[in-house]
Amino acid sequence: MKNIIYILFIGITFFSCKEGSDQNEEAATTIDEISDPLSSWNDGATKTAIIDFIEKVTTQGPDFVPIEDRIATFDNDGNLWAEQPAYFQLFFAIDQVKAMAKDHPEWKDKEPFKSVINNDMKGLMASGEHGLLELVMVSHSGMTGEAYKKAVSNWLKTTKHPRFNQPYSALIYQPMVELLAYLRANEFKTFIVSGGGIDFMRVWASEAYGIPSDQIIGSSIKAKFDYTDGKASIIKLPEIDFIDDKEGKPVGIYQHIGKKPIFASGNSDGDLQMLQYTDSNTYPSFQLYLHHTDAEREWAYDRESSIGRLDKGLDEAHGKGWTVIDMKNDWKTVFPFQ
Amino acid sequence: MKNIIYILFIGITFFSCKEGSDQNEEAATTIDEISDPLSSWNDGATKTAIIDFIEKVTTQGPDFVPIEDRIATFDNDGNLWAEQPAYFQLFFAIDQVKAMAKDHPEWKDKEPFKSVINNDMKGLMASGEHGLLELVMVSHSGMTGEAYKKAVSNWLKTTKHPRFNQPYSALIYQPMVELLAYLRANEFKTFIVSGGGIDFMRVWASEAYGIPSDQIIGSSIKAKFDYTDGKASIIKLPEIDFIDDKEGKPVGIYQHIGKKPIFASGNSDGDLQMLQYTDSNTYPSFQLYLHHTDAEREWAYDRESSIGRLDKGLDEAHGKGWTVIDMKNDWKTVFPFQ
Repeated sequence: MKNIIYILFIGITFFSCKEGSDQNEEAATTIDEISDPLSSWNDGATKTAIIDFIEKVTTQGPDFVPIEDRIATFDNDGNLWAEQPAYFQLFFAIDQVKAMAKDHPEWKDKEPFKSVINNDMKGLMASGEHGLLELVMVSHSGMTGEAYKKAVSNWLKTTKHPRFNQPYSALIYQPMVELLAYLRANEFKTFIVSGGGIDFMRVWASEAYGIPSDQIIGSSIKAKFDYTDGKASIIKLPEIDFIDDKEGKPVGIYQHIGKKPIFASGNSDGDLQMLQYTDSNTYPSFQLYLHHTDAEREWAYDRESSIGRLDKGLDEAHGKGWTVIDMKNDWKTVFPFQ
Repeated sequence: MKNIIYILFIGITFFSCKEGSDQNEEAATTIDEISDPLSSWNDGATKTAIIDFIEKVTTQGPDFVPIEDRIATFDNDGNLWAEQPAYFQLFFAIDQVKAMAKDHPEWKDKEPFKSVINNDMKGLMASGEHGLLELVMVSHSGMTGEAYKKAVSNWLKTTKHPRFNQPYSALIYQPMVELLAYLRANEFKTFIVSGGGIDFMRVWASEAYGIPSDQIIGSSIKAKFDYTDGKASIIKLPEIDFIDDKEGKPVGIYQHIGKKPIFASGNSDGDLQMLQYTDSNTYPSFQLYLHHTDAEREWAYDRESSIGRLDKGLDEAHGKGWTVIDMKNDWKTVFPFQ
């Protein structure tokens, strides 16, 4: 993101003083990047398909889409940032539970907490969906919205990804950050529609992707208003409110945005319904799948992965002619730090 | 709304050709209106308080608020448009039930339907909150999102308000439309936060107030995704999802926007918690109550009204020095058609 801002800033400086004579190499490099808003993408069919679609719907003619209907929705985990070896939010939940364990002696004999305390990831996974949900509930509720924000923010500042030794928020995909900015430059409104926690994302995603908090949609737990001694706050409750995954994604889009997207981007079977919903738009629409094919710079996984499985979605994409990003071949850069 | 667009358009034309010589009277009138973005407001303490606040938070200094945190939330019923003699959405529900009655012979003996069919408003009101809820459920669910939209849109085109003989969507408050535009001109993001139905508002409110559908928050019923024979749609279900009223308003704001407003505007006790929540912002904030004091041009009601009761809210506003609009004295115009 910082790169993008930097490039844009240099760009503005350059254009506003282009009759000057002291242009240096940095500015010269920048012109190339400015002229190509998707400079981290290799030339090829994928990049061309994206650009052609955006040009088509923003040019007066039969395929023109009015600005107010240019809605673009993006999955987050594995689509805007990485999701291996496990969803980053799960690492946060684990670290929170560990920090809370000293106040909960009963956890040392109770799953899934026992496995967390013993660093037993296999045991944790064996506790199944129910165990993971309990972990998330305990670590995400019973506090004010403000306190939760602070906890996530502190965690992001102090922890690093096990493989890349970078803060988790550095593991965003540079080509997708460029795509988001390119869509906005063409007056699209960009949204995140993720199975991840809405509050978790809102702490860091606005800065990372340039998407305001009200355009971030995700899974949520219930909350209540508290007004005690003239002090107003929101308390997060240990109860599921909405699961923004699979069939939930079109419902989340309907309830939160109230319009069908014309552009949808995801990387797993959990995004399939969002892409089907977008495909039913009476306007021209674009469906984009990210296929993780790059074990060297990132990871390679699809049909057999327990995280971010892409199986039915890949078949449907091929059958319907949706665009599939081949990460290894389509992306010049993956992460901004590489 | 059309007036506003017209004024702005004339304004732009005028400023862009101000060295020309053929300025006519229309343009001359327009200059006065342009120079006063709140031209339907009488000069006085209320108007001054609003302008002073907006200037304060948009001017560099200790009270400056960054653009991304300039969130303004507005109640709708009785605050942006009228709500007497009953919520307009209730009239829609009644008309829908009447139209559906021929397929439901069992309704002629069953409340609240019996009262609706017999035009017995007293009987309907006697069926209480539960009866009204049943009415709304029956008339708002069991169809696709698209079909519901069409029903609301047709109804708005074909029905008129009993007192003013105008389409319901004409009963919007001109001064509030100006206030919304003034806030946006100062880079506020404006939201509706209403107890009314989110889908009902989204049909007409974007055009009426210039607020995009994703910035409209309201009460909702559950929905599900349907994918049959390759056709994707959203089906509205007869089950409450969220009541965006009283304690629900700060929760709706938290879940949907993810930021505390710095400007909140309402007209009833149902808005009190939203104003309390806004008042707890660490930035400077502004709380605005609309007091219905104009029986001649609109209605006069407050502490005793069953619709839009303003009782506790009025006390708290006086106690805390919040700004209260006296409709009769503060507004030069109420409705655009007057």
